[in-house]
Amino acid sequence: MMTLKFVLAITTVIGCVSALQATANVARTLRANGVNPKKIPIYRGAETPLIGNDHDHEGEKWFFGADGISGRPNDFPPVEAEDFLAHVEGKHAANALVDIFKEHPNEITLVCLGPLTNIAMALKLCPMFSQWPKQVVCMGGNVYGAGNVKSYSTAEFNFSNDPEAAHIVIKELQCPVTIIPWECFLFPASESKIDFHAHLNLDTPLSKYFNTVTFSGRKKLEESGIQYAYCDEIAMATAIDPENIILEEKKLRGSVELHGSLTRGQLALDWTEVLWNEEKMTLGKFCNKRRPIRFVVKYNIPFLDEMIHKTVKKCL
Amino acid sequence: MMTLKFVLAITTVIGCVSALQATANVARTLRANGVNPKKIPIYRGAETPLIGNDHDHEGEKWFFGADGISGRPNDFPPVEAEDFLAHVEGKHAANALVDIFKEHPNEITLVCLGPLTNIAMALKLCPMFSQWPKQVVCMGGNVYGAGNVKSYSTAEFNFSNDPEAAHIVIKELQCPVTIIPWECFLFPASESKIDFHAHLNLDTPLSKYFNTVTFSGRKKLEESGIQYAYCDEIAMATAIDPENIILEEKKLRGSVELHGSLTRGQLALDWTEVLWNEEKMTLGKFCNKRRPIRFVVKYNIPFLDEMIHKTVKKCL
Amino acid sequence: MMTLKFVLAITTVIGCVSALQATANVARTLRANGVNPKKIPIYRGAETPLIGNDHDHEGEKWFFGADGISGRPNDFPPVEAEDFLAHVEGKHAANALVDIFKEHPNEITLVCLGPLTNIAMALKLCPMFSQWPKQVVCMGGNVYGAGNVKSYSTAEFNFSNDPEAAHIVIKELQCPVTIIPWECFLFPASESKIDFHAHLNLDTPLSKYFNTVTFSGRKKLEESGIQYAYCDEIAMATAIDPENIILEEKKLRGSVELHGSLTRGQLALDWTEVLWNEEKMTLGKFCNKRRPIRFVVKYNIPFLDEMIHKTVKKCL
Amino acid sequence: MMTLKFVLAITTVIGCVSALQATANVARTLRANGVNPKKIPIYRGAETPLIGNDHDHEGEKWFFGADGISGRPNDFPPVEAEDFLAHVEGKHAANALVDIFKEHPNEITLVCLGPLTNIAMALKLCPMFSQWPKQVVCMGGNVYGAGNVKSYSTAEFNFSNDPEAAHIVIKELQCPVTIIPWECFLFPASESKIDFHAHLNLDTPLSKYFNTVTFSGRKKLEESGIQYAYCDEIAMATAIDPENIILEEKKLRGSVELHGSLTRGQLALDWTEVLWNEEKMTLGKFCNKRRPIRFVVKYNIPFLDEMIHKTVKKCL
Repeated sequence: MMTLKFVLAITTVIGCVSALQATANVARTLRANGVNPKKIPIYRGAETPLIGNDHDHEGEKWFFGADGISGRPNDFPPVEAEDFLAHVEGKHAANALVDIFKEHPNEITLVCLGPLTNIAMALKLCPMFSQWPKQVVCMGGNVYGAGNVKSYSTAEFNFSNDPEAAHIVIKELQCPVTIIPWECFLFPASESKIDFHAHLNLDTPLSKYFNTVTFSGRKKLEESGIQYAYCDEIAMATAIDPENIILEEKKLRGSVELHGSLTRGQLALDWTEVLWNEEKMTLGKFCNKRRPIRFVVKYNIPFLDEMIHKTVKKCL
Repeated sequence: MMTLKFVLAITTVIGCVSALQATANVARTLRANGVNPKKIPIYRGAETPLIGNDHDHEGEKWFFGADGISGRPNDFPPVEAEDFLAHVEGKHAANALVDIFKEHPNEITLVCLGPLTNIAMALKLCPMFSQWPKQVVCMGGNVYGAGNVKSYSTAEFNFSNDPEAAHIVIKELQCPVTIIPWECFLFPASESKIDFHAHLNLDTPLSKYFNTVTFSGRKKLEESGIQYAYCDEIAMATAIDPENIILEEKKLRGSVELHGSLTRGQLALDWTEVLWNEEKMTLGKFCNKRRPIRFVVKYNIPFLDEMIHKTVKKCL
Repeated sequence: MMTLKFVLAITTVIGCVSALQATANVARTLRANGVNPKKIPIYRGAETPLIGNDHDHEGEKWFFGADGISGRPNDFPPVEAEDFLAHVEGKHAANALVDIFKEHPNEITLVCLGPLTNIAMALKLCPMFSQWPKQVVCMGGNVYGAGNVKSYSTAEFNFSNDPEAAHIVIKELQCPVTIIPWECFLFPASESKIDFHAHLNLDTPLSKYFNTVTFSGRKKLEESGIQYAYCDEIAMATAIDPENIILEEKKLRGSVELHGSLTRGQLALDWTEVLWNEEKMTLGKFCNKRRPIRFVVKYNIPFLDEMIHKTVKKCL
Repeated sequence: MMTLKFVLAITTVIGCVSALQATANVARTLRANGVNPKKIPIYRGAETPLIGNDHDHEGEKWFFGADGISGRPNDFPPVEAEDFLAHVEGKHAANALVDIFKEHPNEITLVCLGPLTNIAMALKLCPMFSQWPKQVVCMGGNVYGAGNVKSYSTAEFNFSNDPEAAHIVIKELQCPVTIIPWECFLFPASESKIDFHAHLNLDTPLSKYFNTVTFSGRKKLEESGIQYAYCDEIAMATAIDPENIILEEKKLRGSVELHGSLTRGQLALDWTEVLWNEEKMTLGKFCNKRRPIRFVVKYNIPFLDEMIHKTVKKCL
């Protein structure tokens, strides 16, 4: 059963590129889908993380290209100047989130594919926001302490970019939260038999566009003998059709580490609950402050691949 | 093929009990094996961790009993006053380690079953110590960020007790290092079909003794519906017969986090090497400073169980 | 020369009491001054710090009373129900700050007497905000590492309550910043000959009100043989008349420590500039990223005392 | 009254140079004093800090010269090859400290002029060591949070080089501890009228030697318009004649911060005791765990200068 019917709004945030560039990328992506960017409100959000890590984003540019989507502005659909003006002016994404969810409490799924700065700010501007999403599905963080940003860090990219925002979101959200951790990409990538690139070579506009925007990253991974597998796609598919996508899940309580020199931004999970029964746990000082998070630890790759193929062929 | 021939010496350290109590436990264990404690030198080591965590050890006493081995002094073999005097007087374990390994460089396997304070001090007293062990096999730390001490920590007990010592040992040892991480206990425990308690009910002195020393912990785990599975035994068996014990291993570089508020003592591993080929890694600023550690992620439970049974029956 | 002409708006924030309580306190204070609270817009701000320290505010209640101003609701002027509704509804203080300063760039002095959560959020909602205040005068932080919250912390109260907000504000503000550090209270308090309580016993409404709101804290300090000296008053007086108030200042670059276990929230200042001339400093990797902050290290106590007396007598 | 009669032994440690180089420097210094290096036992100690900060010591070499004493091996007295062999072989400084103080409990003053690695290791090898020194006088740390190593650190050099060792020493020593903090150098340096260089131009061997060993640092400071004032000399003089040297002291409890990103190695002191009387303090959870440390905050510069002059003239 599909639970997601349509996209109400899109917000952008600094990640591997600026929120402004992300805004333009969203507009171009809508055009690639044949959607007029003015039909879905785009709200430009945080241009800096709350605190961040002072890193130079050279690694991301090396991997994703200067614009975050391979740096091929003339490919279909060519970049247009007004892509950069496609957002609703004068309203920060954080304020937009508050306004939208306030109007539709418990009705809307929030899918997070980037750093969580805007969501954290919405929570700070309006503590009630914590109760308004129907659910949050988030690509980010990790379940087994595997990082992907640099050799001396166990943080996943989205959480690493704004650890404080991730900490706030994980701590304060009161609605159901599902996380697609980085390990969903990392661990199946080296084992799965799926050709993750098959949908990029179909003769459709979306296939061409996906081929373009994944071009840079695919090349880099291929040099290491690794496929560019699904990642954000898992989160979106989990939001749409969790019953078919999730093969195995774990419910764990946790927090985002802010203070480690190697672990800043890592999700620190409580595995002692596997050992001890609930009674002992509730004696713990803080236990009732943390709600369990649902982690997708294994997803249905063929099913997602089929969803992607249908999407790319526009027959979903 | 057996690679370990005999025990040259035993050192003790503060862990769930004081080094003095651990010394007495070792002496009693030797007696349970029919060995005169004077035949194998015992060196008493650190009575405090380098820095530690100021915790009160109430949790350990709750689980392991007041003496760390179930608090049943009258069980076979009854505690004797001179168990507490069984160590070689006047020589700290750290100095003993330096002296022993200096005399036999590259000949001796060092098996670590407790906090690493003595080993770290040996490294500090004599930097050359880092090259002297033939190999180090260590029960401690984690490979997937799972902790076992408290709800708000991702550290494993031995590393949590002296994070600085673990950091020094992991960073400075130049010999091959094999780690049996906490997940070897945690993950198979809930799935395996082995009866981990079968060897405790044989009619032999060692079976009786093992029954006694595991009594307290077994009861606690049973209350949570979990078996008291093998743990330190995996490390010792890996030192003796790695080819048969190790079913799956991972080689990962890493360091021990010292500064996290949730992750202090956790092993922070570098999974980016799974993504990037060696060339890119060696460009990294610090990469060549860290040697890969071998982690046992899956061990041969039936084989170890048979080893234990044979040991308990004294027919090894 | 007076540089401050009138109060444009007041924002409130969680500190020793909730932002809601602070809002009511501001309204009551305006009434004690004979000002209709509706004449000066009050914007209610953050009800939680960005991250904070999970402390229970029992110490503050012990010192300041349950409402933060001695808990004497029937004293002049008695608390009114509508004090709690005195703020402009529907506009968060952070959004209000952005709107107000955007309209009057480089014209308005921002005086900060509480935790800096609202200011940090304004900076995050609108990076340009960093350039809009004419100056910021802030009571908070420290210059010599002296804390006042608890035995095991070197953080001053306002910074301790929201270290991340203080970090953001100190790092990102581009306008002149003057800090009245905690040591302005701590060090002169034990030496000065001024009777800091004289203005509380005059026969005027404001004197009575000040007597009420300082009642609780004065009693606590008197038990330790210490006067309740000026604190926030120094910041306000510095904003109004810096030439007469500041006797000695130091210009130092610095940042707010976020990660210490004892120093979280402390201002970490760069004293190496006292040793090395500017040339060497600018070689430093980060030096040009930090602007010097002006610290008031000695203020004119008699002059401020006279200002206070005149204010209390309403003849300023 | 002189309390220090003779030097029983000297230990060396890695600081701005290796422990080996420090050993040679000590031997040369003894020779400059006309003392046969074999008459005073030198124990070579730690060649690495417990954890340290991975820094490259380029700054120290820039300031102190390659050998830590200006790099002028041919000046009086010329370096001799056997200076590097002057230490008692086979006994680590930490073991030597344990042995010496064990034999003379409560009789010997321990003067610390470098990183505290050896002392920390002695405490770890033998917890009783904490009670054996008559007193410890230590040049290192700070009282007002002023650092001297780099722009983004509030740690003083000796504590910065081995924060964990400083933490252990400050926490565990049970005997009276006097600290000469970095501010004793920093704050008077810019104000005092003393010519700190006068004793370097006398026609005596020691004057010549002091001129040599301070040459490099003096030049660097002169370029910034600052005199090379006394530093380690204050600690030694305080050990010899505290009544005349100490003009002002503060007794404060504290700990060494290990986990800050800006404050790692800083002494974090408890100034709340200035506010609250002892009764309230002892209610605090940890208060009785920390003994007050005596900080010299103002010393008698002319008196020390005269001591130095007499020493240089060998008429003390």
